[in-house]
Amino acid sequence: MGRVTVRRPVVTYARGARRDRVDALAAEEPLELRVAGKALTVTMRTPGQDVELAHGFLLGEGVVGGLADIATARFCAGTGPDGLNTYNVLDIALAAGVEPPDVGVERNFYTTSSCGVCGKASLDAVRLKTRFSPAADAATVTVDVLTGLPDALRAKQKVFASTGGLHAAGLFTADGRALVVREDVGRHNAVDKVLGWALLDGRVPVAGGVLMVSGRASFELVQKAAMAGVPVLAAVSAPSSLAVELAAEQGITLIGFLRGDSFNVYTGAHRVVG
Amino acid sequence: MGRVTVRRPVVTYARGARRDRVDALAAEEPLELRVAGKALTVTMRTPGQDVELAHGFLLGEGVVGGLADIATARFCAGTGPDGLNTYNVLDIALAAGVEPPDVGVERNFYTTSSCGVCGKASLDAVRLKTRFSPAADAATVTVDVLTGLPDALRAKQKVFASTGGLHAAGLFTADGRALVVREDVGRHNAVDKVLGWALLDGRVPVAGGVLMVSGRASFELVQKAAMAGVPVLAAVSAPSSLAVELAAEQGITLIGFLRGDSFNVYTGAHRVVG
Repeated sequence: MGRVTVRRPVVTYARGARRDRVDALAAEEPLELRVAGKALTVTMRTPGQDVELAHGFLLGEGVVGGLADIATARFCAGTGPDGLNTYNVLDIALAAGVEPPDVGVERNFYTTSSCGVCGKASLDAVRLKTRFSPAADAATVTVDVLTGLPDALRAKQKVFASTGGLHAAGLFTADGRALVVREDVGRHNAVDKVLGWALLDGRVPVAGGVLMVSGRASFELVQKAAMAGVPVLAAVSAPSSLAVELAAEQGITLIGFLRGDSFNVYTGAHRVVG
Repeated sequence: MGRVTVRRPVVTYARGARRDRVDALAAEEPLELRVAGKALTVTMRTPGQDVELAHGFLLGEGVVGGLADIATARFCAGTGPDGLNTYNVLDIALAAGVEPPDVGVERNFYTTSSCGVCGKASLDAVRLKTRFSPAADAATVTVDVLTGLPDALRAKQKVFASTGGLHAAGLFTADGRALVVREDVGRHNAVDKVLGWALLDGRVPVAGGVLMVSGRASFELVQKAAMAGVPVLAAVSAPSSLAVELAAEQGITLIGFLRGDSFNVYTGAHRVVG
């Protein structure tokens, strides 16, 4: 717990000179998520906000749709080589009547269909599970707010500043106010922590919100936004083809290459105003 | 097949002006890997070099250690909405006597131990499976070769040039000659394609080779390098704490922040000369 950075010796070469120094690294540790004692997934993440991560992960998978669907979240007993609790196993008890998740390899919206798997089947699987499709969200966001988001995100990336090694995700209001920013070695984990925070804070569906991510926009990240009802997803880098297709189908405004004073709007351009 | 980029309309805002144009996106499609007809994993990847990807994935998981361990790789029949084969399901037949992989959630080197899961257990699991530990590899690489790798990688990133949306991995000789470069929306897939190419080309263990990746160095990427016997792993961005620990234990030279004329050596500095 709290092991967000780790210090290690490093040899730096720069302009032909060699120098020994100590560097800060972003911590990475496995987290095993269990539901009712049964292992569901293991993710390599930066320790911290693990309860948020678990909430966000289960929301993104469509296992839960509201805070009332989760009864308890607790770290399992279990010690590492140093005799201390590893805090790397988190067990979630679902509320009565909430169906536990499937643990097969075809979960995660890659339902096998007659075509084996394909992009179309992946889109269909999200549509079947979405509870809060953002299509009807009337939120708008201005060009000025959007171009201000990368700096606002970076300003709150405390660990990145010391390690350069973390992805970030942040949830903003439509007028650009940061609600929460999370960092993690895994970009999907950073998004899970943000959306788990929103669930715990009673903000799901995330009406009017803008989710900003430090890297690329993949299918998986758009899927998580869709499951939380986020109307606007903005990324510093490029989206993939399937990310754009899913955003179009779910009525999400998808923005990419958001850098300096420019950006691209791939879908839902009606939400971007003057 | 060959759907490496997809063209889509996009609205670009820059310096206050709005412009409609058409943009190229990196293609993303699910790939289901089966072993003997049984689903092993589904990964979101950029189509192309899927047979390499499968070989590299199975090598990285420790399922196979040489080309002779794989009998056949073939795309399954199965059509998408357009009636064409999706080429998204690849079935691998292992050679006689090769044990099929475990498909539980604790596979992938996150073996549950007395401590639940922890970084130490993850390192132990790799050690148990490694066939080609690079510790004894006497390769050295010069500062000049290392600082030339990012440009050499970028020069061969054909799809990145048009989409800005792909990770890249490349395998180089110790004197800086590019053997293969692969791009993918998933950085682990790019590495699997490179190492799968090496396996198919009879180059595993990759003695004296340098694996260069466009992003960060995570535990997972160091694990893949270890399983293929790669002695030097270089990344444009930061390594995580567990990546450094695994590289140290496996005797891999791990280089990060390789940009311009500078870089950091986290482990195995004896291989960096002059």
